[in-house]
Amino acid sequence: MDIDTLLCARFIIPVEPAGTVLHDHALAIDAGRIAAILPRSEALVRFRPRQCHELSAHALIPGLVNAHTHAAMTLFRGFADDRPLAEWLNEHIWPAERTWVNAAFVRDGARLAAAEMLLSGTTCFNDMYFFPDVTAEVALEAGIRATVGLIVIDFPSAWAGSIDEYFARGTAVHDRFRDASTVHTCFAPHAPYTVSDSTLLKIRTLAEELDIPITMHVHETAAEVTQALAGGGETPLRRLDRLGLLSPRLLAVHVTQAGEADTALLARHGVSVVHCPESNLKLASGLCPVQRLLDAGVNVALGTDGAASNNDLDMLGEMRTAALLGKAVAGDPTAVPAATALAMATLYGARALGLEERIGSLFPGKDADVVAVRLDGLHHQPLYDPLSQLVYTTSRTDVEHVWVGGRQVVEQRRTLYLDGDDLRARAGDWRDRIAGAAID
Amino acid sequence: MDIDTLLCARFIIPVEPAGTVLHDHALAIDAGRIAAILPRSEALVRFRPRQCHELSAHALIPGLVNAHTHAAMTLFRGFADDRPLAEWLNEHIWPAERTWVNAAFVRDGARLAAAEMLLSGTTCFNDMYFFPDVTAEVALEAGIRATVGLIVIDFPSAWAGSIDEYFARGTAVHDRFRDASTVHTCFAPHAPYTVSDSTLLKIRTLAEELDIPITMHVHETAAEVTQALAGGGETPLRRLDRLGLLSPRLLAVHVTQAGEADTALLARHGVSVVHCPESNLKLASGLCPVQRLLDAGVNVALGTDGAASNNDLDMLGEMRTAALLGKAVAGDPTAVPAATALAMATLYGARALGLEERIGSLFPGKDADVVAVRLDGLHHQPLYDPLSQLVYTTSRTDVEHVWVGGRQVVEQRRTLYLDGDDLRARAGDWRDRIAGAAID
Repeated sequence: MDIDTLLCARFIIPVEPAGTVLHDHALAIDAGRIAAILPRSEALVRFRPRQCHELSAHALIPGLVNAHTHAAMTLFRGFADDRPLAEWLNEHIWPAERTWVNAAFVRDGARLAAAEMLLSGTTCFNDMYFFPDVTAEVALEAGIRATVGLIVIDFPSAWAGSIDEYFARGTAVHDRFRDASTVHTCFAPHAPYTVSDSTLLKIRTLAEELDIPITMHVHETAAEVTQALAGGGETPLRRLDRLGLLSPRLLAVHVTQAGEADTALLARHGVSVVHCPESNLKLASGLCPVQRLLDAGVNVALGTDGAASNNDLDMLGEMRTAALLGKAVAGDPTAVPAATALAMATLYGARALGLEERIGSLFPGKDADVVAVRLDGLHHQPLYDPLSQLVYTTSRTDVEHVWVGGRQVVEQRRTLYLDGDDLRARAGDWRDRIAGAAID
Repeated sequence: MDIDTLLCARFIIPVEPAGTVLHDHALAIDAGRIAAILPRSEALVRFRPRQCHELSAHALIPGLVNAHTHAAMTLFRGFADDRPLAEWLNEHIWPAERTWVNAAFVRDGARLAAAEMLLSGTTCFNDMYFFPDVTAEVALEAGIRATVGLIVIDFPSAWAGSIDEYFARGTAVHDRFRDASTVHTCFAPHAPYTVSDSTLLKIRTLAEELDIPITMHVHETAAEVTQALAGGGETPLRRLDRLGLLSPRLLAVHVTQAGEADTALLARHGVSVVHCPESNLKLASGLCPVQRLLDAGVNVALGTDGAASNNDLDMLGEMRTAALLGKAVAGDPTAVPAATALAMATLYGARALGLEERIGSLFPGKDADVVAVRLDGLHHQPLYDPLSQLVYTTSRTDVEHVWVGGRQVVEQRRTLYLDGDDLRARAGDWRDRIAGAAID
């Protein structure tokens, strides 16, 4: 049988079934999809591939799904670290956004982010930022899959001057990319404290009409919850429940505050939580009770958040941090084991975005979003358990090749559709302008 | 003036004075020591170097000091992850150690560890393991600086059959390496619960006689403290105080349990704490209150612990985890800022080991333990603050060159005195034997 591509690898870690590691298997790709996964020797008999890769030092894993980021903010990476949260937002990030964010900023920032994500094995990201049309264009250009958030927030920005304009521009973006195979949209109301009840109700209705997810920062800090209680007498989660926003459509990002009642509420409504451990640590936001949520049946995905609060977009690192931190928070070294951390970074992210039928695991019929990771570094030796080594010792620089929908987008640690030198030069230009203005 | 080596770098981050970043400076090395740090243009006039490196994309930092590890245990990396602590120790690690640990195991494990540490910018490590003579030989061979722990523990091992033998073999190791310039020794009683009072008293006396430090796991878990209280009515720290072990000579490793009284005790006696954040997370041991200890004046160094509980020996990663976790534990995003995390990974480690006069910062007169780290990766862009970027986004693979005592030991990401292919093959052999036996 003729097929497009055959990837023969030392290991394949398909994520489904959970914990599986296949040795000396091959993954067949045809017409952008996974045609089969089978022993290498059988594959060589059965298929005549137009391209064949022998990956004898590698594990194939599903492309990582970064379920929450603000891609363009990569241009603010390291701009104002080690500051109190209010000062960081009010005196640095928000003023800088008011001054600098426009379509050109978002284009250069999203390109830099897309390159960094692809090079570290991320093949799909869920974005929340201004100018989602530009981010979508960049995703198509870079060959990375994306769900771009149609941002809605109760104050004007360079993207929209009023709530009506946020909706008008957002739905226009949705219409424009409706038929794109690798770009999707979701509603992205910023947070409970920046979006009114009436706006949230409208988002609920529209999201159902368009059949798209809703991403929102929820219970990021204890202060958010106590301030809401002081203001209106109900927690943000209970308010979202009252407004009918809690459903499998919702990605609740952060959720560092979740007692038993909250956990039950999230589980009952099938809400996905997006855990962003490094951002939560860096901003001292609080600690998400990941294992408790998982035990209650909540789907927990993983995100890096923006580079301004991380400071990278490295899902392999984020996966390791989630596995390590999850044990400490649970007080149990068996919590968030390696296979679970990998599922959070892949399948559970796909599920949160409503893309589980298409991506998130290496499974025949799914789109071929595949990452080849070297496991032969000195830091991997000795190699007792490839899955454990993948989570606990692998670095972004071990990612060698990446395919999205069967198309190779990273080859030998180089992005094929983005020019690293150009990205570096543009980032330097933005730095000079932004830092120069900050010094004045 | 003729000198051995001149390193011209885009940035020099000397650690002393704290927070300093020098632009376009040069570091002059002669006879193994730092002769001067000065603007590049002045250096090119003043010095005639036999070797000159132009490091236009790099930051020079002091070699990282890994203040606690068990180097040879690298051969158990990933051997038994995601297990409850007691099962991990009693059913996996300790039986494996009884079966496999001998001089050959320690030689191969320590070589693998030395290579991994050098390649990730560590130039000095403080080890606690059996066969410290072998680890010392490996350190000399690899060109890495080491303090090897003269281990003492109340049960027999392949290294020693009795307490008397532990002392006899340990002091013989001390005598043998007394005149080595880059290998030092310290006493390494394993933990309060595995070493008796009389043995600790003997260690105190001998450590003073030989003028060497003492390294010990102390308050690693809450269970250690509660069990000690149940057994003898005093916490391990109070017991060490009673025995006269608390002094600037002591490195108390882990200390996840330290209330106000403990913190005051550590500060009053000038004890150094060695924080091992990733091991503490992975084993769910507890969370060290780093900023509180620092605020009280305690010297807090940084260690990776062994690769079996980490699972790497990457001090850049450990530094980042310490900076992130320190904020969450303090509930304050300004806690453990970048400059402090870097000092913990360098100067404070040197201070803990009694080597502050020789290493830990880039300072004229100190030994030239220097690391050249690339800061031009896409993940570093844009570069607002080199010190922040070093801590929050740099990976081990950004380390390009390493010098120890003025001698280059890593060149373009390759160890000059250790053969990576040989290390890989030997690690594979141990894996086959150990995993094969585990399956039986």
